[in-house]
Amino acid sequence: MTTFSERLHAAIKQKRTPALVGLDPRWENLPNDVKQKASEAGGDTAAIHARAYEEFSCRIIDVVAPLVPAVKPQSAFFEACGPAGVEALRNVIAAARKAGLIVICDAKRGDIGSTAEAYAAAYLAGEDPNAAPFAADCLTVNPYMGVDTLQPFVKRASEVGAGIYVLVRTSNPGAGDFQDRETESTKLFETVADRIEQLSTEMANGSEYGSVGAVVGATYPDELRQLRSRMPHVPLLVPGYGSQGGTSADVAGAFDANGLGAVVNSSRGIIFSYQKGKLAEEFGEAKWEAAVEAATKLMIEDLATHTPAGKL
Amino acid sequence: MTTFSERLHAAIKQKRTPALVGLDPRWENLPNDVKQKASEAGGDTAAIHARAYEEFSCRIIDVVAPLVPAVKPQSAFFEACGPAGVEALRNVIAAARKAGLIVICDAKRGDIGSTAEAYAAAYLAGEDPNAAPFAADCLTVNPYMGVDTLQPFVKRASEVGAGIYVLVRTSNPGAGDFQDRETESTKLFETVADRIEQLSTEMANGSEYGSVGAVVGATYPDELRQLRSRMPHVPLLVPGYGSQGGTSADVAGAFDANGLGAVVNSSRGIIFSYQKGKLAEEFGEAKWEAAVEAATKLMIEDLATHTPAGKL
Repeated sequence: MTTFSERLHAAIKQKRTPALVGLDPRWENLPNDVKQKASEAGGDTAAIHARAYEEFSCRIIDVVAPLVPAVKPQSAFFEACGPAGVEALRNVIAAARKAGLIVICDAKRGDIGSTAEAYAAAYLAGEDPNAAPFAADCLTVNPYMGVDTLQPFVKRASEVGAGIYVLVRTSNPGAGDFQDRETESTKLFETVADRIEQLSTEMANGSEYGSVGAVVGATYPDELRQLRSRMPHVPLLVPGYGSQGGTSADVAGAFDANGLGAVVNSSRGIIFSYQKGKLAEEFGEAKWEAAVEAATKLMIEDLATHTPAGKL
Repeated sequence: MTTFSERLHAAIKQKRTPALVGLDPRWENLPNDVKQKASEAGGDTAAIHARAYEEFSCRIIDVVAPLVPAVKPQSAFFEACGPAGVEALRNVIAAARKAGLIVICDAKRGDIGSTAEAYAAAYLAGEDPNAAPFAADCLTVNPYMGVDTLQPFVKRASEVGAGIYVLVRTSNPGAGDFQDRETESTKLFETVADRIEQLSTEMANGSEYGSVGAVVGATYPDELRQLRSRMPHVPLLVPGYGSQGGTSADVAGAFDANGLGAVVNSSRGIIFSYQKGKLAEEFGEAKWEAAVEAATKLMIEDLATHTPAGKL
């Protein structure tokens, strides 16, 4: 069985980029053709939105599958459509997998032992698409409750060849409220980082990276660089590039010398690129998929030019 | 519009108990009649489990609705059955509401601003059963990402008369890993508590309790007592009573002088009471609903005898 980390790095090398496309469907930002088609099929608002989210996400997947190693569907937007939305999420995960993409489900789960087992069983499938109802390769997880609440995820990930990314340093403006609390010159997020490094090293079994990853925001570049060296066996998931303000220079510190060890996510900046800036002018709503493709290629080029990912 | 806190306290006074029943369906613990009926209706494993979870939870609701103010469905077990399970969760929430119970959805969500808005819209309905696809009165929320990530939940709760319970001091053995980190004699969970008190006071608008609550485990009774006085405007949700080892003496410190300000949860100790101990002997599997009723009444009596809830 290959590990999540092995599969992820193989995909990064094959596509020669660490660019990760976030699937965050929002009704108000969807192209009109998608909204109209979904509306015409009928049903209540939730059913219409869910149908539109699925179509939009699957069309993005078709565009980006030849270009990037992985996608990251954001569960919240699908859950906001109720059970129909959750079914759409399941289908989007399956479609991404079928298109050869690695799927990181961004649901930020976490709970006490036996409950964490249920979440792990729900979302961590590893290589086998039938091993979980939401058959993701990887799940984002919240560490607040303690290391014993991470263990069921780590155990399941080891068993099925899946991975997790634990929140360490998030990209939002208030990230420091609790994460920056300092004890004897160690901040909370550093303590969390040390525990994640330990978990991932145990799991790495001698190879370079384990399959317990960490979420570290692009919006705090100094911490990002520091955390890269503090967690040498931990693959990083870096949100905050693009519409949240992070640049390729900001994320350069996330990579190892070979350009591996990190994926960089962009959601709105790619999937809604037809609405804003140069690509909106060039392509407009009628050619929104061409805008998505162009935005993805621009991101790949930007990362290749200004970060160690250029060595891939 | 009544607030969540007002409705919760009215229900506590009406039922004269702060006992909260946790709905944690686990296939291996379900009574055979429920499993068999669900299996006979056909479908794949996920569909069968989802059907059984819904039936089991709804029958528990019928038993406990005359006895307790609120129930707490645990989302993880439903999510583990995929989209069918999530539909069952939606139906269980609706059934509990219809039976006059307050519903606290235990899903421990949390994310950056615009994503948190989607979670809040998904789960917070307040008084109107049509205001959200999962029409809970209240949701559990994880604070790790910072106060700005709690704000969208607080805003939505204010708008629709819903509530949230933020994780402060959880009940699991490893709770202290990060929550106990101490800075200038303030532990992380105390810092979180201070921010929650502030949010709830702002929301309370002059009344005794706001609708931003806190999860504080029964398994750390000293912290529980200390946190009660540290957060005088914050309603508490206390897990860990019963099968996790917390006693009525341990939770006594959660209440104010009138026996208000807290609900105490028991899940397995009530819903699977037919499997273990005295009630198993007395009722057995054939009369599992009678065992659930007896276990609920024993918990209510225990809290009334050994805590300020006796004054209700």
